[in-house]
Amino acid sequence: MSLLVMKFGGTSVADLSRIGRAASKICREVENGHDVIVIVSAMAGRTNELVGWVQETSPLYDAREYDAVVSAGENITAGLMALTLQEMGVPARSWQGWQVPLKTNSSHSAARIEEIPRDNIDARFAAGMQVAVIAGFQGISPEGRITTLGRGGSDTSAVAFAAAFDAVRCDIYTDVDGVYTADPRICEKARRLDRISFEEMLELASLGAKVLQTRSVELAMRYNVRLRVLSSFEDTDESSGTLVCSEEEIMESRVVSGVAHSRDEAKMTLVSVADRPGIAAAIFGPLAEAGVNVDMIVQNISDEGRTDLTFSCPTDQVARAEKALEAARTRGDIGYGELLADTGVAKVSVVGIGMRSQSGVAARMFAALAEEGVNIKVITTSEIKISVLIDRKYMELAVQALHDAFALEHIG
Amino acid sequence: MSLLVMKFGGTSVADLSRIGRAASKICREVENGHDVIVIVSAMAGRTNELVGWVQETSPLYDAREYDAVVSAGENITAGLMALTLQEMGVPARSWQGWQVPLKTNSSHSAARIEEIPRDNIDARFAAGMQVAVIAGFQGISPEGRITTLGRGGSDTSAVAFAAAFDAVRCDIYTDVDGVYTADPRICEKARRLDRISFEEMLELASLGAKVLQTRSVELAMRYNVRLRVLSSFEDTDESSGTLVCSEEEIMESRVVSGVAHSRDEAKMTLVSVADRPGIAAAIFGPLAEAGVNVDMIVQNISDEGRTDLTFSCPTDQVARAEKALEAARTRGDIGYGELLADTGVAKVSVVGIGMRSQSGVAARMFAALAEEGVNIKVITTSEIKISVLIDRKYMELAVQALHDAFALEHIG
Repeated sequence: MSLLVMKFGGTSVADLSRIGRAASKICREVENGHDVIVIVSAMAGRTNELVGWVQETSPLYDAREYDAVVSAGENITAGLMALTLQEMGVPARSWQGWQVPLKTNSSHSAARIEEIPRDNIDARFAAGMQVAVIAGFQGISPEGRITTLGRGGSDTSAVAFAAAFDAVRCDIYTDVDGVYTADPRICEKARRLDRISFEEMLELASLGAKVLQTRSVELAMRYNVRLRVLSSFEDTDESSGTLVCSEEEIMESRVVSGVAHSRDEAKMTLVSVADRPGIAAAIFGPLAEAGVNVDMIVQNISDEGRTDLTFSCPTDQVARAEKALEAARTRGDIGYGELLADTGVAKVSVVGIGMRSQSGVAARMFAALAEEGVNIKVITTSEIKISVLIDRKYMELAVQALHDAFALEHIG
Repeated sequence: MSLLVMKFGGTSVADLSRIGRAASKICREVENGHDVIVIVSAMAGRTNELVGWVQETSPLYDAREYDAVVSAGENITAGLMALTLQEMGVPARSWQGWQVPLKTNSSHSAARIEEIPRDNIDARFAAGMQVAVIAGFQGISPEGRITTLGRGGSDTSAVAFAAAFDAVRCDIYTDVDGVYTADPRICEKARRLDRISFEEMLELASLGAKVLQTRSVELAMRYNVRLRVLSSFEDTDESSGTLVCSEEEIMESRVVSGVAHSRDEAKMTLVSVADRPGIAAAIFGPLAEAGVNVDMIVQNISDEGRTDLTFSCPTDQVARAEKALEAARTRGDIGYGELLADTGVAKVSVVGIGMRSQSGVAARMFAALAEEGVNIKVITTSEIKISVLIDRKYMELAVQALHDAFALEHIG
């Protein structure tokens, strides 16, 4: 009997009628001969309500109690989904994290999955259960307390179950119908990808494509879990959505698979930094401690022992970054002439595993941007990605130009 | 260290500010030197919302899934209460039923408590925890599934914890400030009782006084748990509310402690029933199977082998009773001339442990009603209670007259 994991996010189970629609999709897979493990999120809005109550009650909350409260949302959906399936004649039952048990470490609110013993669920499949409905996002710590995996953790739950139960595939049902070559809202030529590699998906996720949590893709890559992203609001079949899989499963060769963008970027420049060994640690240590997510880093060549150092971070962390750096200067840990913050920038990236074997991608990218008169402020590259910071007003134009330059409307 | 159990119902934890008010009362008891076990209900309205979803999803629901869903409300309150107490500087943590564990049988949605091992909670008290906040109304079955104790089960949870942990008292905080000699809404002379015996409270609860669940009073009586009913909305101290306790603790002697009433009664009469051995079983068996809660039963003396048989039940069960009886007649199990239903009646009762030793209570009751011109349709008595069915339009008048006749305004 082949086992399939299906995961439904918050908007896919937002009310009873949507739970019913999701249940119909599950029924179809049961009819196709699968045993099914279903992972459900809380009904849309519920988790935010619970988080709001916790934060209002206790701004510096005990994460153990936070987890005990916010995990309630998924428990409700799991029970309602099991009941809906039973009404459709499918033997189903709900499982809360501790019942499986999904064992995690004790890092409450951001717990790591340690083990998912199969015994309990396998025994129920053997006894005739066809669908195990699992409350996503939650587990149990070695101390017997409820843990949660962090926001978006239901994707991670789903991949972990798919790995533990050797699922043929892990289908992530969401409010988009797949992974696109670019955001269709700003690039009308954007095409849905049939397949994309784990590596590319990871880059796209970390670049701001909100389809899948980075962590769940990492986990899928590590355990080679074939992930499929598809719409819970449309009729779907075996060819729907986008399959996220290993490179070996992707036949066609393409240089670039997608163009990503991120709107809320800020560029910060430390002017005239004393360039001495250890200076990078002295700068980025305090930023990390202050919770600033530094993304791109560029250091100019040194001129008479001083250099300019530029980095990017989310716009809403600029104030925090300024405070941390000025405190470090006051303490004498670092010295610099000026700190410039430019909050009018955006990041645009091209991603593709084909870059590894094909040269000239960067040149083609820069040429396409130059043709549109877009000035590049910062460049970073990885093996399968090239990112640039540009003025935010050119963001849409740049995405469209790059989509054209790499002929992404012909992908699919 | 003396241990106190405090229970807060749904209206007492309806929002964050009320949870804060309840937490202040808990803090005061901690300052008084108590270890405290707190039992919380779901925020008012939450359980109804969850029950509504379950019933809409699956009218003949799987009670195991019902329990998994509806128990979520108490878990939320428990976590929020623990956080509120922590904010006030009190070491507190939440416990869900399965974490304690509160062990029940497998009768989902109406589970019986089997055992509450003390080890886990005692260990935490020994390690410095001052308040254990327990999600009420829930437990865990031998199969590891979540069970619930039935509506109002949080009172039962509270008494069970008080018994298991040898609590000095179990304080039930609710939206009334105690047990009254009559319903103050219809009898302005009604007085709050300082003390009432378990037996009297049981009669009052089963007669419709909504202060405490019958089952929790039974449990308190069996384990001799001193119960105190008091208001969560007023400032309270050691002398607040009403103490429900054993007879031995009640000094003053009084004949009658209270007058109870129940509005939604119907009187049904089977006219000219063939009076033969087994006829009562043939009538009340089908009624029980149909879920009709028969209360009073009166059988007239037999006349030429036929008799009239009268019983009372809640008005909303009349149709069900008629259907069950007519089906039994059709099957030939019973024979009767006519079935009369009178849905315009009410039940009024006087309750008091003093009746056991003092005669003439019934006569005094009937005289008081006669003086007001109230006709009595049916009478039943127990050792400590006399109930009558009367026309509903006289109900308020009857309650006031009986309150006067037994001088209940001087009790207290």
